[in-house]
Amino acid sequence: MTIRHPILAAAFLALATASGSASAQTVVNQAITEREVVAAQRAWCDALVSISTTHATQGQPAAKALAERVIDAAYGYQLGAVLFKPTLTVAPQTFRTTRAGALAYFVGGDPAFPNDKGFALSGWTKCEATNSAIFIAGTSASTMGNVAITGPNGAVTTVDKTWTYVKDSAGQLRIVVHHSSLPYRPN
Amino acid sequence: MTIRHPILAAAFLALATASGSASAQTVVNQAITEREVVAAQRAWCDALVSISTTHATQGQPAAKALAERVIDAAYGYQLGAVLFKPTLTVAPQTFRTTRAGALAYFVGGDPAFPNDKGFALSGWTKCEATNSAIFIAGTSASTMGNVAITGPNGAVTTVDKTWTYVKDSAGQLRIVVHHSSLPYRPN
Amino acid sequence: MTIRHPILAAAFLALATASGSASAQTVVNQAITEREVVAAQRAWCDALVSISTTHATQGQPAAKALAERVIDAAYGYQLGAVLFKPTLTVAPQTFRTTRAGALAYFVGGDPAFPNDKGFALSGWTKCEATNSAIFIAGTSASTMGNVAITGPNGAVTTVDKTWTYVKDSAGQLRIVVHHSSLPYRPN
Amino acid sequence: MTIRHPILAAAFLALATASGSASAQTVVNQAITEREVVAAQRAWCDALVSISTTHATQGQPAAKALAERVIDAAYGYQLGAVLFKPTLTVAPQTFRTTRAGALAYFVGGDPAFPNDKGFALSGWTKCEATNSAIFIAGTSASTMGNVAITGPNGAVTTVDKTWTYVKDSAGQLRIVVHHSSLPYRPN
Repeated sequence: MTIRHPILAAAFLALATASGSASAQTVVNQAITEREVVAAQRAWCDALVSISTTHATQGQPAAKALAERVIDAAYGYQLGAVLFKPTLTVAPQTFRTTRAGALAYFVGGDPAFPNDKGFALSGWTKCEATNSAIFIAGTSASTMGNVAITGPNGAVTTVDKTWTYVKDSAGQLRIVVHHSSLPYRPN
Repeated sequence: MTIRHPILAAAFLALATASGSASAQTVVNQAITEREVVAAQRAWCDALVSISTTHATQGQPAAKALAERVIDAAYGYQLGAVLFKPTLTVAPQTFRTTRAGALAYFVGGDPAFPNDKGFALSGWTKCEATNSAIFIAGTSASTMGNVAITGPNGAVTTVDKTWTYVKDSAGQLRIVVHHSSLPYRPN
Repeated sequence: MTIRHPILAAAFLALATASGSASAQTVVNQAITEREVVAAQRAWCDALVSISTTHATQGQPAAKALAERVIDAAYGYQLGAVLFKPTLTVAPQTFRTTRAGALAYFVGGDPAFPNDKGFALSGWTKCEATNSAIFIAGTSASTMGNVAITGPNGAVTTVDKTWTYVKDSAGQLRIVVHHSSLPYRPN
Repeated sequence: MTIRHPILAAAFLALATASGSASAQTVVNQAITEREVVAAQRAWCDALVSISTTHATQGQPAAKALAERVIDAAYGYQLGAVLFKPTLTVAPQTFRTTRAGALAYFVGGDPAFPNDKGFALSGWTKCEATNSAIFIAGTSASTMGNVAITGPNGAVTTVDKTWTYVKDSAGQLRIVVHHSSLPYRPN
């Protein structure tokens, strides 16, 4: 029996012990699965649309509060830094290795990042990730592909996107690398 | 600059940002180091002696409370299970994959583990680990060697010991494998 | 589609390209699976019996040649060292971190290891591993449990056994930790 | 003593055994270091300039042969796939998960990739990587930052670049993720 979630694993062990099943083989598996990766991408897309919706219905402060919860749950800033290159940032603030830099990108309003208008506030209504390939290294996993996001007028923007995840001790995937870029346009 | 501890890493980033050092290269390193492994072994030995001392001076309940804190801090039971084969256990309770089984082994007093007298209550005064080899796989690390423990009368018991550690999200090493055995004695 | 074996993966990619399937999502997964761990244990057991059989029918040199192939295929000595504590070794040669030490243990005949009689030459006819628990850390995996081996007269010896595996670049599991011990016998 | 390179490790072990140093502690460390990451980036840059130079002095076939050696030594295509988004590719051939796709991007001449002119054939004379941050997850490591490359007329092109490396069984870092993009230009 394979138990991936720590809490469920503990529950199972309690049951196994209670029932005297001394020979039950327990399997703890910390490896990242394809299913977890796809779920993390889905969660990111859903969060982007939620922040847009919250902005439209409740204003920027509510959207900002939600974005903070999303960043704290989905990114790995608490691990020390995240390698985050958002789609629309420019030098010398291209790379957002700090939580403050990520938050400013998503919801704007931070004078330390004056070019940030708030990418997640643009009225996105739909978000879909399509992977070209997934590489699961064991305790980290990377994806590369397109993310298509639909704006308020129905126009679809497609970006080239790379994510790398690690799994934290609670079994949660966290983004530690996020490189997003507009497709190259030959002249 | 390499920052291994998440809290220090966050502090450094705050400083780097505050000082406007946009070009500072941040390095987050989750790999386990030899130094961390040796410190974890040292901590295990110190904890064993502390539990013995606490038992002698404050009684079994105090020793048990300390053992619980030690197990929760040093082992990985919260990850789902630990592969723990203590030195002196016998079938069908040889393997202590649950926290309750580890606690019973160290301090006894659990009717579910009737053979356990409390290994850590034996008046140990000294504990020293000597490694034959260390294998650091990246996010896990294993050691193999001897641990010599000194009893109240000065007699030294030496066991063959294997430990495997993983590093949790807080940067703490946790024992996920612990195999201890008395040296083989040819007839 | 998940492809675990590099050679098969390459074959699949060739097919995918040939068929013009530009949108096929490829998944490379280097994480160790429970199935691979159990297969590696099965292979170790089968190899032990094979060495015994080869010794009985073809003599020690043939058994030694087979043991060398087994060690080179199943252990990680080429990675630098293996943390190997065989069941029956004694100090100061308890730990066999080198290939020569492992080979001497299995088939004897090495004057540098004068106590080694050749554990694998004892006429073993059957070998079965039963796991208490498996801990898959991602790129490494550990097992703990019993291995029961049947001798020429039908007597069964049961040992407490811990193995840790890493997966090499060719997708092969390799033993990097192996701690084996006779069960503790209270006086 | 820490031994990172398998060959050196084996040599050291041979010495340790020969000298009868039974108590020597051997450390095998498979974790990726910052130094190895920086060296891999340096090697990539040097290879790019070498391919350009070879093209200028010996022609495309020689440059192609060199590029094949570089790809086989520095990328992880033999692991199953690489998540490679080159700077200048366009849909539907944006992502180059196969070796053939990478080779075509670097040296052109492959009718299956008709838009590829050969990025490495552009007379690059200098290449320098500057990291914003490095994230070492243990058995994988990622970098994010800029790579500045100097063309034949002295003009410098700067790209935003993410690399993820894994270490193979021979101790060699291999690129498994490579996302390169031109900086975003606001209208």
